Amino acid sequence: MTSKRPKRDGGDFPRADLDARTLAFIDGIASRVHETIARGELPTIDILVRSLSNVSYDPDKGYLELGEIHKSRTLTVNTIRSFAQTLRLLATSGDMVRNNDFATKREAYYVSKNWGDCRFDDQPESDAIMDDIEALASLQGLSREQLRFYADSHGGSVAGELVVIDPHPETGAEIEIDCRNLGTGAYSIPRSVEHLGFRTNAEFVLAIETGGMFQRLNNHRFWKKANCILVEMAGVPTRATRRFLRRLTDERNLPVYCFVDCDPYGFANIYRTLKAGSGNAAHINQFLCVPRARFLGVAPRDIKDYGLEDATHPLNKTDIKRAQDAIRNDPFFAAYPEWIAAIEQLVAMGVRAEQQALAKWGLNFVMDDYLPRKLADKSSFLP
Amino acid sequence: MTSKRPKRDGGDFPRADLDARTLAFIDGIASRVHETIARGELPTIDILVRSLSNVSYDPDKGYLELGEIHKSRTLTVNTIRSFAQTLRLLATSGDMVRNNDFATKREAYYVSKNWGDCRFDDQPESDAIMDDIEALASLQGLSREQLRFYADSHGGSVAGELVVIDPHPETGAEIEIDCRNLGTGAYSIPRSVEHLGFRTNAEFVLAIETGGMFQRLNNHRFWKKANCILVEMAGVPTRATRRFLRRLTDERNLPVYCFVDCDPYGFANIYRTLKAGSGNAAHINQFLCVPRARFLGVAPRDIKDYGLEDATHPLNKTDIKRAQDAIRNDPFFAAYPEWIAAIEQLVAMGVRAEQQALAKWGLNFVMDDYLPRKLADKSSFLP
Repeated sequence: MTSKRPKRDGGDFPRADLDARTLAFIDGIASRVHETIARGELPTIDILVRSLSNVSYDPDKGYLELGEIHKSRTLTVNTIRSFAQTLRLLATSGDMVRNNDFATKREAYYVSKNWGDCRFDDQPESDAIMDDIEALASLQGLSREQLRFYADSHGGSVAGELVVIDPHPETGAEIEIDCRNLGTGAYSIPRSVEHLGFRTNAEFVLAIETGGMFQRLNNHRFWKKANCILVEMAGVPTRATRRFLRRLTDERNLPVYCFVDCDPYGFANIYRTLKAGSGNAAHINQFLCVPRARFLGVAPRDIKDYGLEDATHPLNKTDIKRAQDAIRNDPFFAAYPEWIAAIEQLVAMGVRAEQQALAKWGLNFVMDDYLPRKLADKSSFLP
Repeated sequence: MTSKRPKRDGGDFPRADLDARTLAFIDGIASRVHETIARGELPTIDILVRSLSNVSYDPDKGYLELGEIHKSRTLTVNTIRSFAQTLRLLATSGDMVRNNDFATKREAYYVSKNWGDCRFDDQPESDAIMDDIEALASLQGLSREQLRFYADSHGGSVAGELVVIDPHPETGAEIEIDCRNLGTGAYSIPRSVEHLGFRTNAEFVLAIETGGMFQRLNNHRFWKKANCILVEMAGVPTRATRRFLRRLTDERNLPVYCFVDCDPYGFANIYRTLKAGSGNAAHINQFLCVPRARFLGVAPRDIKDYGLEDATHPLNKTDIKRAQDAIRNDPFFAAYPEWIAAIEQLVAMGVRAEQQALAKWGLNFVMDDYLPRKLADKSSFLP
């Protein structure tokens, strides 16, 4: 059974009442189930259809979005186990909100080991139920982190013109972390960032693909010279890093300039995921996409403009397939002729260039020449 | 041609004169080459043999150690390219020491693109030359980081009872990073830690395998209750994390308690690498191994002691092979009958248990019960 729901709004939600809304979401489902049973009827939970057939892209919204198609999970002999697991997981979430605690997805799986017959047999089973709940919560503007289920993956690192404000978990007093004052080290983003506040006079955020480049710009205090915040993505940014960038740029109205390798992976996997989200987790893109992101480089034209021809590598089959997919099948790139042209230019050149290839002209060419020239002409950034 | 060199000492070197010693090492090689050429003879560079046949383990030293066998690389028609590359890379290192700069291994490869005919064709080529230089430098107690070649990989995260002291790169003034004051975030270890100082009253360091467990113990301020420092390894610890732990524990005379999954990977790949180093990079173990490490858990006997039987997973073929390798072929485990017995016990049980499996008894069982009981009986830790 499928039907339509009213359109929901984007991911703009104040922090203060989030816990109350999360509990209301959980209690709402539980109450409906309880009332139905009390009437002697079979209870039902609405679940969103999460397949790609229910995903669309609207350039004005700026992210790959889950559609409104949903199905009902009614209690039957066949669904009794997953029905019970859904309610148990919701109850666990409610307990964590009330206790100001959290569970990684792995821990949530292990917690079930005390649930008797409805315990999860393996984590893919618990992840699937969690995804159902997450999609449902997204209708209320609530992310999985609000349900207190955190990813196990590491957040990125941050340095530069930013003070992060984090309430002390015991006293509630504000802890201020000054990212200008961490030496050659950096601030490691926690697994949930919903509770963080920000103070900054920076002009922009520079989101960097490789840890090596981040270390170079941090050690040389590039953030001071350029009045910016450095964020190390270390490849495709994790969920925590994406949400951190989203909240930071929303709250402080800052642009994010993305500095990654010039290859289809850098364009389609790193940049597009950061800016518009991913197709196979569309229900969370509203929280994680960073519409203010722009592509600083390395752009295909930079290979000629900066004489990097002999520091490139040939595109391999995977690169070419990824490029063709981006040109032909990706609704994000389809919305931007500049991107199609740039990717076609790279394919025609038949090479890729890493951001560290700029070291050909000296280790600090990137800081002394490349980035200042780029930043002086922001209209050249790809959208 | 192979011969023997005098025994060198361990990795104990003061920071102040390291740059001078690094430059002396580079100038020494260059001068000998120069003098030989001036005499009209063919120049030679001594290279250590880095194969496993030149690796041994001495429990008193506590790490897998490169032997003394070396070979000579004499300038010939066949070696001219690698000979020139070795000298060029040494010169790059010298420039970086003098300019207080560094290069990732990837950047070092790209820097060569301006070397004309002796440029590196790919990074494995530059890495091999760098390994030769690194092995040579290790004879002088100098690590690759002292040569200013850094790994690209991320350092781990740190929270708790520690102040890291990092000289300001411009002024030299000491920057103090208080790891008690980073909220739910953490201190991200930089790619080189040679310049760092430490102040702490902690009783021990807890080195944690998973990011999820680290986040739990940090959010709940376990480090305060237990008076310790938390370090997130995120799997096998990176070079920077291992060196950080080594320097911290050497300087402050602190034990490291390792808290990882109960499986052959946790024992042999994570713990053994942390404590004794790895067999295929034996020339660097003297700098990176952490002899003060002890194995807190999860130990095979914990599966019964803490009732985790129904939260385990069966050992797969890879696990069993890894366990058998550890029992039969690993000089580290061979030195400790307790370890052989523990691994045999796990193989007999036929299961593995993750550290997050403790969540079966509640999310905070690990903090409220498991860790306090373990820490009250340190003699039960595996060596």
